[in-house]
Amino acid sequence: MYMQRAIELARRGWYTARPNPRVGCVIVAGSRVLGDGWHVRAGEAHAERNALADVTARGHSAKGATAYVTLEPCAHTGRTPPCTQALIDAGIERVVIGAQDPNPAVDGQGIDALRAAGLDVITGVLAERCAALNAGFNQRMTRNRPWVRVKLAMSLDGRTAAADGTSQWITGDTARDDVHRLRAESGAVMIGRGTASADDPALTVRLSGDWDQPLRVVLDSRLAMAADARMFCQAGETLIFTASDDEDKTGALEDAGARVARVGGSDTGLDLGRVLGLLAEREINDVLVEAGPTLAGALTQAGLVDEYIIYVAPQLIGDTGRGLMSLAGAIGLDDATRLTFDNVEPVGVDLKITARPLKEG
Amino acid sequence: MYMQRAIELARRGWYTARPNPRVGCVIVAGSRVLGDGWHVRAGEAHAERNALADVTARGHSAKGATAYVTLEPCAHTGRTPPCTQALIDAGIERVVIGAQDPNPAVDGQGIDALRAAGLDVITGVLAERCAALNAGFNQRMTRNRPWVRVKLAMSLDGRTAAADGTSQWITGDTARDDVHRLRAESGAVMIGRGTASADDPALTVRLSGDWDQPLRVVLDSRLAMAADARMFCQAGETLIFTASDDEDKTGALEDAGARVARVGGSDTGLDLGRVLGLLAEREINDVLVEAGPTLAGALTQAGLVDEYIIYVAPQLIGDTGRGLMSLAGAIGLDDATRLTFDNVEPVGVDLKITARPLKEG
Repeated sequence: MYMQRAIELARRGWYTARPNPRVGCVIVAGSRVLGDGWHVRAGEAHAERNALADVTARGHSAKGATAYVTLEPCAHTGRTPPCTQALIDAGIERVVIGAQDPNPAVDGQGIDALRAAGLDVITGVLAERCAALNAGFNQRMTRNRPWVRVKLAMSLDGRTAAADGTSQWITGDTARDDVHRLRAESGAVMIGRGTASADDPALTVRLSGDWDQPLRVVLDSRLAMAADARMFCQAGETLIFTASDDEDKTGALEDAGARVARVGGSDTGLDLGRVLGLLAEREINDVLVEAGPTLAGALTQAGLVDEYIIYVAPQLIGDTGRGLMSLAGAIGLDDATRLTFDNVEPVGVDLKITARPLKEG
Repeated sequence: MYMQRAIELARRGWYTARPNPRVGCVIVAGSRVLGDGWHVRAGEAHAERNALADVTARGHSAKGATAYVTLEPCAHTGRTPPCTQALIDAGIERVVIGAQDPNPAVDGQGIDALRAAGLDVITGVLAERCAALNAGFNQRMTRNRPWVRVKLAMSLDGRTAAADGTSQWITGDTARDDVHRLRAESGAVMIGRGTASADDPALTVRLSGDWDQPLRVVLDSRLAMAADARMFCQAGETLIFTASDDEDKTGALEDAGARVARVGGSDTGLDLGRVLGLLAEREINDVLVEAGPTLAGALTQAGLVDEYIIYVAPQLIGDTGRGLMSLAGAIGLDDATRLTFDNVEPVGVDLKITARPLKEG
């Protein structure tokens, strides 16, 4: 199946395509693959153009051929000219599309442009799997907020730290590497002020090779963060959301290299919906929240979590350990947040459980 | 592989063979299966005799044949006469044995008896898998205590009940049926007094069909259990271990149908090692502990847990919920109990995680 191959190509842009969607394209004549391509990086050519260039580089012509593309080709000029025109100009006769463009403003314009030029267009092929390539991009386009994944690490009895606060290395090396990959595929990594103070994390991708560093986001309603925090000295940018007007603290943190943005807040913290909206405006598709119990609980109760990724270490810490999540006001079982398990897999000696909030109804 | 078939036969006695081991036997001549059998129930024929009877019933003779048996045949008269003699009398020429008899007192006597009679004996075929049929029996024979499985049910954030104590039906129907199967394969089901008071459980196997009810064991150091507890009205027996000498309470509980046994205790509860020793004396191979946080923690800290079976429900209860396990004196991460994950599988909407204590060194 050529669409399956196009999906695999799209995956090659997994860590680099953002803020653009991950897209793959295969150009076929009869049963012969003439060329293929994927979108590598924003500002560079889209998948369709890369595939057409590959056809030419291999000495073929795309005239009369079929293009399989995981996402509806763009009909507008963004960072690059429209792909629909490139396909038409190359003489492509048929376009098989996986997912439609999630941007409601586009509304099938790419498909229309192709059809208007006389091309045969087939849509919805492996649509769900093609759409799954871009959960974050899709959500940003349709709901103006990023896809929010809350990553947590705990013992088998649901504790994130021992009674004395020790928590470093609850999970094993393999799980920690896995977290670095999660960071690498996210446009932003977000923590609360509690975690910033307690752990002073660098929040960088530390894997061998060259990696784009995600935006580091700290929610710090009272601007209590230390100006000598480790993350300020790392590659990449740091953005602090606060409700505080304190000019001195703002100045100190900006001198340290962070940017400070103001959002409204309430007694219980910042307006999390607004924070996510602002991140979407900055073209962040995916936010990885590496939260303590307070922020994880607040996001959960605000209904803003799309996915939980929980690493479970094979140990028992006991009731005196720190809990996974604070859910203010939760009294009875009816107050519990219902989830559905997506996946569970071993990661080194640990387990990795992926769950999503259960849709109501 | 005939031994694989013998293992499958042994499994047919999974719920009924106790306190005897689960054993299967296949009798083969050349590549032809002449007959097979398994041990169904204590007091009835062993697997070897059932297989020999099957050979006869099918109109064959076992003369010159090979017997595959998952466990070393017995050479002594227990509830039934020795199987070695039955194999010799039937003219079996070769015996292929899976696991050796774990009873140190037996010490290869079955093998010796067969060899002394001139039979060819091969040992250790799929030995580990044959031994795994009888983890409980083996432990009782070698260590004079049952195999102890602690079953727990919790939310994804490690909570067994909400802040108001509500805990019924955290897990789904499928997981609850699974627990009934765990009960059915156990010689005893054990709880602490806290769970007895809080939940007043029946502790019976409630599956369709006829099932042997496990012995119900309650650890009740001060004999505080109510004489009208639900479990006293159920099929099967109830045994209460206590450190109390209170004759009145003992009388009331015995009138209610329970038996009361005295064991030593300390400030923190009963002598759990002694309790398990007494259960082994009663030929209990497997104990399923359906514990609250206190008993689960005490067994963990005493190093008496062989296996944890944890059902994880897809919900988040929050930090105010009741924890999974009380580990007295656990302060830092160094005090954590290290485990190794054996298995994880979906059970309905829930996950079932099986873990064992990590062996030292």
